[in-house]
Amino acid sequence: MALRDTHVTMAHGGGGRAMRDLIEEVFTSVFQPPGSEDQARLMDAALQQPGARLAFTTDSFVVTPLEFPGGDIGKLAVCGTVNDLAVGGARPLWLSAAFIIEEGCEIALLRRIVGSMAAEAALAGVRIVTGDTKVVDRGKGDGVFITTAGVGVIPQGREIGARHIRPGDAVIVNGVLGDHGATILAARGDLALSVDLVSDCAGLGHLMQAALAAAPGLRAARDCTRGGLASALNEMAAEAGVAVELDETLLPLRPEVAGLCELLGLDPLYLANEGRLVLFCPADQAEMALAAMRALPEGRGACIIGEAKPGPAGRVTLRTAFGGARLVDMLIGEQLPRIC
Amino acid sequence: MALRDTHVTMAHGGGGRAMRDLIEEVFTSVFQPPGSEDQARLMDAALQQPGARLAFTTDSFVVTPLEFPGGDIGKLAVCGTVNDLAVGGARPLWLSAAFIIEEGCEIALLRRIVGSMAAEAALAGVRIVTGDTKVVDRGKGDGVFITTAGVGVIPQGREIGARHIRPGDAVIVNGVLGDHGATILAARGDLALSVDLVSDCAGLGHLMQAALAAAPGLRAARDCTRGGLASALNEMAAEAGVAVELDETLLPLRPEVAGLCELLGLDPLYLANEGRLVLFCPADQAEMALAAMRALPEGRGACIIGEAKPGPAGRVTLRTAFGGARLVDMLIGEQLPRIC
Repeated sequence: MALRDTHVTMAHGGGGRAMRDLIEEVFTSVFQPPGSEDQARLMDAALQQPGARLAFTTDSFVVTPLEFPGGDIGKLAVCGTVNDLAVGGARPLWLSAAFIIEEGCEIALLRRIVGSMAAEAALAGVRIVTGDTKVVDRGKGDGVFITTAGVGVIPQGREIGARHIRPGDAVIVNGVLGDHGATILAARGDLALSVDLVSDCAGLGHLMQAALAAAPGLRAARDCTRGGLASALNEMAAEAGVAVELDETLLPLRPEVAGLCELLGLDPLYLANEGRLVLFCPADQAEMALAAMRALPEGRGACIIGEAKPGPAGRVTLRTAFGGARLVDMLIGEQLPRIC
Repeated sequence: MALRDTHVTMAHGGGGRAMRDLIEEVFTSVFQPPGSEDQARLMDAALQQPGARLAFTTDSFVVTPLEFPGGDIGKLAVCGTVNDLAVGGARPLWLSAAFIIEEGCEIALLRRIVGSMAAEAALAGVRIVTGDTKVVDRGKGDGVFITTAGVGVIPQGREIGARHIRPGDAVIVNGVLGDHGATILAARGDLALSVDLVSDCAGLGHLMQAALAAAPGLRAARDCTRGGLASALNEMAAEAGVAVELDETLLPLRPEVAGLCELLGLDPLYLANEGRLVLFCPADQAEMALAAMRALPEGRGACIIGEAKPGPAGRVTLRTAFGGARLVDMLIGEQLPRIC
């Protein structure tokens, strides 16, 4: 144990021995990247198949608090990027992880975060193969920010994306909405609320593979993170040139989340999720998709919530329990800052 | 022009329309990523050649000030990741770019940074294909932090890395040392120094390709960023199990940088560079490598600075102008914080 410090100092970012010790003891000893070069050198047979494409995506994570019921920033950083790859039809292969650490950050906290990243990567079947650490002065960061990038492979012939959506398609989600957003809100402690909520944060790679196998006509999927289900559907409807009609009576909501939203004047359709996706598939394949999804823990609550309509293009509406209809627009500003 | 704001607000990170406007007007209109999905979907014929490998790397950038003579954080973020790919023998193909923006950051500043990223990417022959933006509250960030990840391709049969270094190899750098570190130091204005320095920040992909073509036996290369030439050589010597002997009379130093170091008690061997690499190649190919490097602007100052020796393994020494020798150890703590 060369690392005797309990908190990160500016020296841990300076490029010398202190940085090397921090990286070796806290990061690479856990992630075990291949090789000792700064770059990972990799190949996967699936990437060399004719017609295969590489999928590449990135996300930064700035969630506060860093640890919350059901996860932490590390789990989020792995799941978020795995999910961005998965909803495009890619099999996630490799992740990078870059850490911007505030001077004074507890090293024990970093170890917990790194541990949960490694555990989540193992669950998702991906490897964290390369990384970086930087240290910023106290008051110029906030504990730790993590940026992951991910590489995956899309096999030949798999073409999913919003432009493939057709009127009549079923709209499916994999479980109750808004748990992540509501959990973070409660965890911040500003509200003196005690609600028994846990973030939905989960990797959705296996779920997407199962849905694709069961419903080969699956048109498009998107994870419902910042901006929630409403923002994902608005983007997809606009790209597809269709309308989407949701049925309020079908929306899966936990009573605690619905209650919290009512209390605070929030709309659960805009609450962030970190383990929820919305997908479109031909109506005649919807039951097959649902059955396959429900066989996995992260899809247990899968259900149909609405339908694609011919138009007006880009419009998302909610048919209410009372038979009315309201517009579900794009979120204008912020609902909750630093939710992921 | 939907974006009427002059400064970034928390709403620009919330996942709604304000975020979409910021992303479209400031980022994607300039980077023009392929497709409208969150993930880029890509393929390059070179990646599908038998024996090809994918190179993958990431770095976060937290330099202060954000703009400095010779570059800005955006140029740095592109060059840094391009160079990490290049020194491993990869041809850089695609970059991701993730921005953590502090509330209140000037949008005009973001536009300048994005513009310099696009220009640098074009020079390097890479595309910025995917990205992300997050906003953190005032006082929880510092203007903007950028994390880039890069994917490149290493052709079949190209095996470079520190473990290939052999005693007798020539040690080559591509120009004067320490300009970036000294420039940042002077630009911070703490020193009331007026020195006429410019960062060496540059993409080294073309230079590496030229060196590899001219000296096919090239063993290993590394960019001399944080921790400078000394740290890069210490790492390489340890991995290779060789010693490295530098000749002080051969070290290329700008008089202004040498003077600044003398004044401040800094050692130029530890100053950060952002457009400098050190490479090892068989002595009988050194002249070919030098000629090829000198033909490019970023290699104009290429020269031999020392030699690999049989041992002791991992030891780097400097033979001084007076005939003595001193140990060039790994940097212990920090020399300059937030240099990149």
